[in-house]
Amino acid sequence: MKFTINRAAFIKELNNVQRAISSKTTIPILTGLKLVADDAGLTLTGSDADISIETLIHADNPDNQLAIASTGAIVLPARFFSDIVKRLPEDTLTLDVTEGFQTEITSGSASFTINGLDANNYPHLPEIDATDAVSLSGNVFRELINQTVIAVSNQESRPILTGVHFTLVDDQLLAVATDSHRLSQRKINLPQAASAMYDVIIPGKSLTELSRMIGDDNPDVEMRLSENQVLFTIGDRYFYSRLLEGNYPDTSRLIPKESTTSAEFDAKALLASIERASLLSHESRNNVVKLTLDPETDTATIFGNSPDVGNVEESLTPSELTGEALEISFNPDYMKDALRSFGQTAIKIAFTSPLRPFTLVPTEDSDNFVQLITPVRTF
Amino acid sequence: MKFTINRAAFIKELNNVQRAISSKTTIPILTGLKLVADDAGLTLTGSDADISIETLIHADNPDNQLAIASTGAIVLPARFFSDIVKRLPEDTLTLDVTEGFQTEITSGSASFTINGLDANNYPHLPEIDATDAVSLSGNVFRELINQTVIAVSNQESRPILTGVHFTLVDDQLLAVATDSHRLSQRKINLPQAASAMYDVIIPGKSLTELSRMIGDDNPDVEMRLSENQVLFTIGDRYFYSRLLEGNYPDTSRLIPKESTTSAEFDAKALLASIERASLLSHESRNNVVKLTLDPETDTATIFGNSPDVGNVEESLTPSELTGEALEISFNPDYMKDALRSFGQTAIKIAFTSPLRPFTLVPTEDSDNFVQLITPVRTF
Repeated sequence: MKFTINRAAFIKELNNVQRAISSKTTIPILTGLKLVADDAGLTLTGSDADISIETLIHADNPDNQLAIASTGAIVLPARFFSDIVKRLPEDTLTLDVTEGFQTEITSGSASFTINGLDANNYPHLPEIDATDAVSLSGNVFRELINQTVIAVSNQESRPILTGVHFTLVDDQLLAVATDSHRLSQRKINLPQAASAMYDVIIPGKSLTELSRMIGDDNPDVEMRLSENQVLFTIGDRYFYSRLLEGNYPDTSRLIPKESTTSAEFDAKALLASIERASLLSHESRNNVVKLTLDPETDTATIFGNSPDVGNVEESLTPSELTGEALEISFNPDYMKDALRSFGQTAIKIAFTSPLRPFTLVPTEDSDNFVQLITPVRTF
Repeated sequence: MKFTINRAAFIKELNNVQRAISSKTTIPILTGLKLVADDAGLTLTGSDADISIETLIHADNPDNQLAIASTGAIVLPARFFSDIVKRLPEDTLTLDVTEGFQTEITSGSASFTINGLDANNYPHLPEIDATDAVSLSGNVFRELINQTVIAVSNQESRPILTGVHFTLVDDQLLAVATDSHRLSQRKINLPQAASAMYDVIIPGKSLTELSRMIGDDNPDVEMRLSENQVLFTIGDRYFYSRLLEGNYPDTSRLIPKESTTSAEFDAKALLASIERASLLSHESRNNVVKLTLDPETDTATIFGNSPDVGNVEESLTPSELTGEALEISFNPDYMKDALRSFGQTAIKIAFTSPLRPFTLVPTEDSDNFVQLITPVRTF
């Protein structure tokens, strides 16, 4: 196996594949990066057993300056190999597997020789032969991920809650996550009805990495399923993740339909004042911020308190405030995560009682995105 | 004590004074920031007992929007107070010390009440009544600090070596640091002879903080000494540091005057290839890189090796190479620090033998800056 390649093009794909490679794996060969050179080009593979990423650098794209002198495969220590490639002096590099699995990497006058591993010992990627794929806009799907993963549990005591629950029926994709203190639900209407029905739970960690790989240029993302794996295809990049096994709790009845008090705020302004209040609540044993709503005077007031350090009080003027007066306490960190996920829009918060979960929705397009937060009892 | 101030102007000086404040101090009041409002303006003080920083925000500078309603003093929890100030909603803030040491901070509709401490219990800053000051250009002095502190020891076993040794005789300021494996020496010729003679050791940590405070706009830095303290004045900012007590070793005879082999390199190109070689030496138990110089073929070759991972070899063409052939090994991290301190210039390295220290100087202006590195015996 021997090839020459443009270093910048190679580094770009190295970075993508490295997302899947962990130095903490219990399977030593998975600390390596698998390289396969064939007539089509160079394929890079990385995996931590949960996530696998594969990417193809085409031989026929002149930007890649890829010339394959002889085909073959090798596994190289990923972190170390990537450090070398990033520090090489010239615009191209040549990689040559010499005797055994010794690999020579040359660029300009610098020449590295490193010990590789037999690519035959590298685990096979899952086979996904599903023909029906769901196609999604990269930007929309990335937004869906970022809006839901915030509510995923990071406690392994209920592993099922560390994933996002995806259901697809006809033209509607629904994603829900909850850690049992808060919930986030996002709907996407697909341009056409899908031919398959999905009901799967994808680990939050996989989705976070996938969202980073989608990038800013709004590529199409294709999603395919097998029994215990999902494959996302983004151009020539393939992202595999295992699915979580088990039944996701029924969340459809958790979201209250009615409310007794409702208030509209600018999400960004409310976020800023919750951040101020949390400066104090974070110094306190019970991390709680209090909100009072008084529709008669049209005022909302936020309180934060720490017996050791001091307190803060701030009044806000909601753009709309209707219903009964209310005093409610909540974890400000849940509120901050929720508010950040809306960006810079107007939102509506609907309450039923100081002890019942309340919901946040964007004032426009309120059907497709809802966040739910359980309050904290302080009396 | 009550005042209103422009938040941006206040934050700028808060950031400066906070350099001196550590949360790890054994003297609780030093985790606080001292504020004193008087007719001249607002004085901020922070200290960790080794370093103290004081800065004055003038009442008569309209940019500060400083209006002092009543004079007085207070000590506030520094980190927490600064977090609050940075998150306030409006361009100005009002600070009001109410009953006891309770302090109210208001900005727009946000109102914080925090518990302060009695400013009378804050330690006094050292008194430095020296009238003769040495004045230095900020850029030159910052460069001198950054070029010498790299060689300071971080081992407390010989505390004296954790400082930089400054001597001033007539118009020449000399700064030397060594950790006994390497040495860095920088000279500055002052525009006029100083009236005093200095021989002091300033802690490296103090100098690193001072260098950050000097900033990019090339301010004048004035240096004044007392028996065990040094005061640097930068405009309205006062930076105090304790001095290290003891006798600094005589370093003047360590720097060899003659050489048997000498080579000239571009500092940046040599740095890049040492960085590549250190990728391998860092994987090895003894972190060593080997350099061979062959004046007959005009080549320099760098070797890095790790038995587990592999090896690297790279040939360089020095712009000049004279004297005897040589093979020498050294710690690449010392070499990297030294090369970085030269920036993008041509340098000359002079060797006497594989076991004797070698020197690096800029090809131009070679009298004022020298780095010395002790090689590693590998045979």
